[in-house]
Amino acid sequence: MIIRELRVTPIAFRDPPLLNADGVHQPHVLRAVVELVVDDGRGGEVTGLGECAGHAWQLDWLTLAGAHLAGIHVFDTAAVGRTVRALLAGRADGVDYGTGAPWRRWADRTSPPESRGPAPIPAPAFDVRRVYAAIEVACLDAQGKLSGVPVVDLLGGRVRDAVPYSAYLFYKWKEHPERNGAPAIGDDWGAALDPDGIVAQARRMVDRYGFRSLKLKGGVFPPDEEIAAIHALRAAFPGHPLRIDPNAAWTLQTSLAAVRELEGVLEYLEDPVAGVADMGALAAHTSIPLATNMCVNSLETMRPALDHGAVRIVLADHHYWGGLRGTAALGDVCKAVGWGLSMHSNSHLGISLAAMTHAAAATEDLAYACDTHYPWNAADDVVAPGTLAFTDGAVEVPRGPGLGVELDRAVLDRLHATYLGLGREHRNDKTYLRTVEPDFDPTLPRW
Amino acid sequence: MIIRELRVTPIAFRDPPLLNADGVHQPHVLRAVVELVVDDGRGGEVTGLGECAGHAWQLDWLTLAGAHLAGIHVFDTAAVGRTVRALLAGRADGVDYGTGAPWRRWADRTSPPESRGPAPIPAPAFDVRRVYAAIEVACLDAQGKLSGVPVVDLLGGRVRDAVPYSAYLFYKWKEHPERNGAPAIGDDWGAALDPDGIVAQARRMVDRYGFRSLKLKGGVFPPDEEIAAIHALRAAFPGHPLRIDPNAAWTLQTSLAAVRELEGVLEYLEDPVAGVADMGALAAHTSIPLATNMCVNSLETMRPALDHGAVRIVLADHHYWGGLRGTAALGDVCKAVGWGLSMHSNSHLGISLAAMTHAAAATEDLAYACDTHYPWNAADDVVAPGTLAFTDGAVEVPRGPGLGVELDRAVLDRLHATYLGLGREHRNDKTYLRTVEPDFDPTLPRW
Repeated sequence: MIIRELRVTPIAFRDPPLLNADGVHQPHVLRAVVELVVDDGRGGEVTGLGECAGHAWQLDWLTLAGAHLAGIHVFDTAAVGRTVRALLAGRADGVDYGTGAPWRRWADRTSPPESRGPAPIPAPAFDVRRVYAAIEVACLDAQGKLSGVPVVDLLGGRVRDAVPYSAYLFYKWKEHPERNGAPAIGDDWGAALDPDGIVAQARRMVDRYGFRSLKLKGGVFPPDEEIAAIHALRAAFPGHPLRIDPNAAWTLQTSLAAVRELEGVLEYLEDPVAGVADMGALAAHTSIPLATNMCVNSLETMRPALDHGAVRIVLADHHYWGGLRGTAALGDVCKAVGWGLSMHSNSHLGISLAAMTHAAAATEDLAYACDTHYPWNAADDVVAPGTLAFTDGAVEVPRGPGLGVELDRAVLDRLHATYLGLGREHRNDKTYLRTVEPDFDPTLPRW
Repeated sequence: MIIRELRVTPIAFRDPPLLNADGVHQPHVLRAVVELVVDDGRGGEVTGLGECAGHAWQLDWLTLAGAHLAGIHVFDTAAVGRTVRALLAGRADGVDYGTGAPWRRWADRTSPPESRGPAPIPAPAFDVRRVYAAIEVACLDAQGKLSGVPVVDLLGGRVRDAVPYSAYLFYKWKEHPERNGAPAIGDDWGAALDPDGIVAQARRMVDRYGFRSLKLKGGVFPPDEEIAAIHALRAAFPGHPLRIDPNAAWTLQTSLAAVRELEGVLEYLEDPVAGVADMGALAAHTSIPLATNMCVNSLETMRPALDHGAVRIVLADHHYWGGLRGTAALGDVCKAVGWGLSMHSNSHLGISLAAMTHAAAATEDLAYACDTHYPWNAADDVVAPGTLAFTDGAVEVPRGPGLGVELDRAVLDRLHATYLGLGREHRNDKTYLRTVEPDFDPTLPRW
């Protein structure tokens, strides 16, 4: 049960032009599939799967770490973590994050706006955890395959058989525009640039997947327009809990006005402002629970948020919360401090969806429908069809060993070829938006 | 990998007359060994071991729960937990705790003294967790045996190869007195009733086991005498971190005076007073870290302690902190709120020592030497010799599958016969002390 090697395959999959506070999603998401090859102790081998972002630095770090994992027992994820940290800790400062890389700015945003720059947890340490998490998932997948049990059982067993997800609504263009002679790329979702468009998108999400909670990615249009979209959703879906996530695009003053318009309408309000001080100041003036995946993104950032009374709900994400075990433990952490727990998502495919589903199924105190981008990207899934499906908005926890999903190698090869053809190394929503709106200024808060 | 049956064997093992705030340890500790028989999926079976207190109610509940576990997958501890809770929740109110059962009073003591009675977490729910924990350990032992890995690896892997323990010093009589015509029962430790006796006991503990931290069970003699014992230990062991645990036998006023005498001498002061309000009031007046296993004994009791600034260190104990997984997760909880983590002990044998060692080995933020009563009881261990030993005060994490220990069935049979011969159903330190000191009043605080 010893690790033989880690294979890292960068891929690129199609993504619609989804708008957010940082810009707009590019036509392809860069991501990586991780395959951990493990001696099964019986003359054969098993392969554990993981999935993570495919930024150049993350690929480099994964590859570097992967070259040093051979010989570690696949159940000893503590040793894997030590190896990853020892290899990467010293390299973090010189990393090329690319220009305007949103994940770097996003980590920076965990600081109050007046002190942007040093994040409460240094970005390098945070990013080392992101590399570790992809490997941890692959370890747990392999452990499950070796033991003949689903990953959820390695985390303590299922507290639910199916995990509810929310419809993740985005303002979006009708299509990726023509560029450099290449034709425009449309999709079957169409445009959503106003309340009617958002309601139509929600209707389609609900009809197609059965989602029972709705989340709007905000921070794109002036707050009044986004508040109007929330009210339109409330009228169209009177029984669906609603959330909005402006990604810290609002000032405290704007947020104070916004919560007056949204009292009694929202299940929670996610990261309207940056930093625990402003979140706390806002929380003192509203009954709407404030949620975050920005001002709390690690155990180290919890105490300041507690001391400021900044939030009532944290969004977990195994991709940076210490992997699946760290995510499951976060349920205990939140119970101890009296916070609710929800789940964050970034653009992803089925390996991550399976991992999110196992983690959520093992976490008793995860009381909210989880976020997922999966409906936007499912057409390019590297997971072979048959195990992951939304029924009444929920994904049944796979029953097979490990994550319970299988790689479709033909799709993997196609997405890898796409990656190589793109020649792109970083995500850059800002630069892409500027090809259409040359004056776009990503500075936050915007309103 | 389906559970077939749970066997519960009540045992009684010899215990010296160790004094504490509740009275004195009786000549035998009542405890139970749990054997979980699991289909190995290959035509055979494996047996997972657990160990817990042997109070009558706990034996009854274990037996009741055990009769309903057959058919559950041994990796699905969530299903085991649901079954245990569903069976026992309704029975808790009518349970016969015996007269003066210390665990009930101990749970009550998590409330401030002025409101004794209702504990922050109702004793029944707390006790249901104690039943679950013994079974969870047996499940994890079986899981490890089925997967061929040590329990520590099922908890995420070892962050240390050996777990440091502290010398657990007790005031004690020279012997159990003659009673009902039966002769007195001595031991090779002798009496310890003053500073010299405590120092001699510590010397023997350190010489024999190599312990590098010393903990004195206090609340037995007037605080001045116990403070003198601490100063005597400091003089005799200048490099050993020192702790004292008066078990809430002191008033706030007494504690305020005591910390003035102990500043700069203690590693931490454990539960001098009862309740988070008084602990917080004391904490505000001393630089000595306050620790607890009384006013925080569950996730539900953490927030009040946080809000009162009551403690800086929590003592975990897998026997009531949600089993081994709950204990490992407590490391994350403590990191999140900025608390240190240590480990609590009650009289136990080697199955519990192995479980404590695996849990501690998997918990990165456990920064203190763990408590253990094991040296007082090791002569009657039900674990076959060869795997558990103290070297330089630490126990090496067993390398074999599961807990890595084996039951000595001849010893088990002997201790079960002893249990049957005693005819005793409850621990009662108070009544036993009254056979020697008829006027002993267990009311706390005492000073």
